Amino acid sequence: MTIKRASFIKELERLVGAERVFSHEIDLLCHSYDGTFLEKTPDLVVRPVTTEQVSGVLALAHKEGVPVYPRGAATGLSGGTVPLRGGIVLDLTAMDKIYEINQEDMLAVVGPGVVTGHLHREVEARGLFYPPDPSSSDFCTMGGNVAECAGGPRGLKYGVTRDYVLGLEVVLADGRIIRTGGRTIKNVTGYDLTRLFVGSEGTLGVVTEIIVRLIPKPSHVRTLLACFKDLVRTGEAVTAILSAGVIPRTLEIMDAVSISLVERFASCGLPLDAEAVLLIETDGSEQEATEAAELIVRLLREVGAQDIRLAKDAIEAQELWKARKSISPAIAKIKPTKISEDATVPRSRVAEMIKRLGQIRQKYGIDLVIFGHAGDGNLHPNIACDRSDPEEMEKVEKAIGEIFEAALELGGTLSGEHGIGILKAPYLRRELGPAYEVMRTIKKALDPDNILNPGKIFAE
Amino acid sequence: MTIKRASFIKELERLVGAERVFSHEIDLLCHSYDGTFLEKTPDLVVRPVTTEQVSGVLALAHKEGVPVYPRGAATGLSGGTVPLRGGIVLDLTAMDKIYEINQEDMLAVVGPGVVTGHLHREVEARGLFYPPDPSSSDFCTMGGNVAECAGGPRGLKYGVTRDYVLGLEVVLADGRIIRTGGRTIKNVTGYDLTRLFVGSEGTLGVVTEIIVRLIPKPSHVRTLLACFKDLVRTGEAVTAILSAGVIPRTLEIMDAVSISLVERFASCGLPLDAEAVLLIETDGSEQEATEAAELIVRLLREVGAQDIRLAKDAIEAQELWKARKSISPAIAKIKPTKISEDATVPRSRVAEMIKRLGQIRQKYGIDLVIFGHAGDGNLHPNIACDRSDPEEMEKVEKAIGEIFEAALELGGTLSGEHGIGILKAPYLRRELGPAYEVMRTIKKALDPDNILNPGKIFAE
Repeated sequence: MTIKRASFIKELERLVGAERVFSHEIDLLCHSYDGTFLEKTPDLVVRPVTTEQVSGVLALAHKEGVPVYPRGAATGLSGGTVPLRGGIVLDLTAMDKIYEINQEDMLAVVGPGVVTGHLHREVEARGLFYPPDPSSSDFCTMGGNVAECAGGPRGLKYGVTRDYVLGLEVVLADGRIIRTGGRTIKNVTGYDLTRLFVGSEGTLGVVTEIIVRLIPKPSHVRTLLACFKDLVRTGEAVTAILSAGVIPRTLEIMDAVSISLVERFASCGLPLDAEAVLLIETDGSEQEATEAAELIVRLLREVGAQDIRLAKDAIEAQELWKARKSISPAIAKIKPTKISEDATVPRSRVAEMIKRLGQIRQKYGIDLVIFGHAGDGNLHPNIACDRSDPEEMEKVEKAIGEIFEAALELGGTLSGEHGIGILKAPYLRRELGPAYEVMRTIKKALDPDNILNPGKIFAE
Repeated sequence: MTIKRASFIKELERLVGAERVFSHEIDLLCHSYDGTFLEKTPDLVVRPVTTEQVSGVLALAHKEGVPVYPRGAATGLSGGTVPLRGGIVLDLTAMDKIYEINQEDMLAVVGPGVVTGHLHREVEARGLFYPPDPSSSDFCTMGGNVAECAGGPRGLKYGVTRDYVLGLEVVLADGRIIRTGGRTIKNVTGYDLTRLFVGSEGTLGVVTEIIVRLIPKPSHVRTLLACFKDLVRTGEAVTAILSAGVIPRTLEIMDAVSISLVERFASCGLPLDAEAVLLIETDGSEQEATEAAELIVRLLREVGAQDIRLAKDAIEAQELWKARKSISPAIAKIKPTKISEDATVPRSRVAEMIKRLGQIRQKYGIDLVIFGHAGDGNLHPNIACDRSDPEEMEKVEKAIGEIFEAALELGGTLSGEHGIGILKAPYLRRELGPAYEVMRTIKKALDPDNILNPGKIFAE
């Protein structure tokens, strides 16, 4: 393979410096996997620090036909960064500077390697707020968030990554550097390339700089939790809350299996006979947050919720979040492999989707735990399994296919916030219909030799 | 020309019905212009009622190489619907059904011909809210709003059209029908085609159905107005307001020329020695809206605003809006031609941009009036002129060039919400740099024969 040629490596080292090209087995292994169970060892890892270096690497790879797999912290849950065809993993974690936090224009300019949680803390210290909050925010990078259009619990009120990206610097497959969007909130100058790149999973270009919009930080948050004996009532609760003109910041749901699981591992004091739990946050000024929370408590009582707990302070709020935050660690304790899905349905179909997921769980006898963002219909069916057990994995694969089928039948979509990557690629055409070919046309137009993250989004 | 052939017209009539194909001079004239001073008579007007008819027309036009100009109410301000090369004007105003308003999923499904203001009224009657509010909302259509990514005063708090479109049905240049996005708020399944089509000004496809997200209707609005003797103080006021964690629903600015103009024509009681006026709206629950308005009044006093008026009720609010709403009619009274620009700068540069615009006004001795959305930097420099006076028009053209140059120098963009159309096409490459070619690549990939709205966005 051309990539192993000494002259190729030499040229790479000339472009980025020898200390930024890695070929040791350990380095390759460390860049072979992501947050899924998938893995593939790359031929080389390159860790650039400037846009010009990224451009140089891509121009060379383009000339030589070498696949390039851009990656941040690789916390992704769809296989988006796994180097399926070997080639170069382009590790962008060293481009980790916050270049600017502009309080007057309420925007930040960051490199793709900036950890999302780091940006959260920096802007919040200045009274500002960057809402997208994927649960990996302590580790994941802004570049990865842009590539996958990351969401998080706060999406209900505040939207997802695409709603905050004002502009990008992008290196195209052939090494050309372009800028999209800019520093203004309103911008309709030509096609919306910014949002074409957001969520394109590294298949159209490599993002090297990101301008994000910030908003004023809500000063207060109130947290409450409610239990439901009847799953259908949770749907009624969600509708009642939103119809009352209140948009909570988060509106999380946990199913009965989640409840029994966290009780087994973390003892959060949830009633074991509940069919579902809603965890809700309101925010704004102290009065706004409190009034909204109190209104929600009244509405929850009206639809028959039980055991409604409104946290008095941050410590009590943390207690309420404990259950939700314990789910993932608890799942990891059941079996070695954890598959996190994000099939999404219209809000009104959440209760029905949870029922369908329960049927799939029974049919295949798998360890399926359901939680997620009820307010925007973005559920996270998680499957605990053992990747070394081929019989179980076959059942799991069939179950995942049925999960997607159920989401589509209910008017939903394959992915709400994790992206298509490798895992969902086989199902893409089913959802998109003729729009699939339009996406392929755009991919071919911008990356004719298919060197950027090949094997992702479009099944091979 | 092929389009005048009897066989071509016969085929069109077969596709959509003879009563939906128009070739009378009057019909052609009525479809020759938009909200600018541009005009060009088409060869034919076709007014389809179904997606299949649109598909048939495009497939035929594609085969015969006939340009197709999609259009709604043609209230556009950049020449987006003017049939520059003749051909077919595809009038979508008959596709004017609201198919669904779903209160539980908080979305609406509409045809492209639905008038935006009609949708506003229908959803508000159900306690819901569709925020984008272009000032032509009583006439303009949702299809046009999607094509241009329309904004409006409420963009500061609520964003623009792109932020509300969940999914589209689109007919491509060759007649293929695709669906993008869907009915969920979170959706990262493949490329964001939805937002590629939003703002693409009818050059990539014809939108035949639109799914928009709705939000709960804020129950109360408070309106206030403040005058400033010193323009720079308005910038300080905007920063003070937003830094205090309040996002007003609108934050409009009028310059001294606007003030003297509306006083001359409408007598709104504004002080003639003021350099600027801010018109501000807050919304939410009664308490939220009032508290935010009172906080803003305090902040305005602190930065030295004068003559601060907080409307007590809807009638007083209407009085305050009278000045802002009188600007456009007042401009129309000075001279027959009104050119409305929408150069946009980062929020912190608004005061500077207004100064630069004042210098351009002086340099060319033109009737330039400045108002717009100070909160998001989206200004509307309006020029009153006479298109039949070539000497004046030459000056106006030069002035417009300098307006764009000033916006770009201040880190802004050519267009915040009107689109590029014909008028701004010559300046596009200057702003976009190498991203221009990427947009051309996408246009060529999706419309290789350039039959969709040719001559728009990309200068010929």
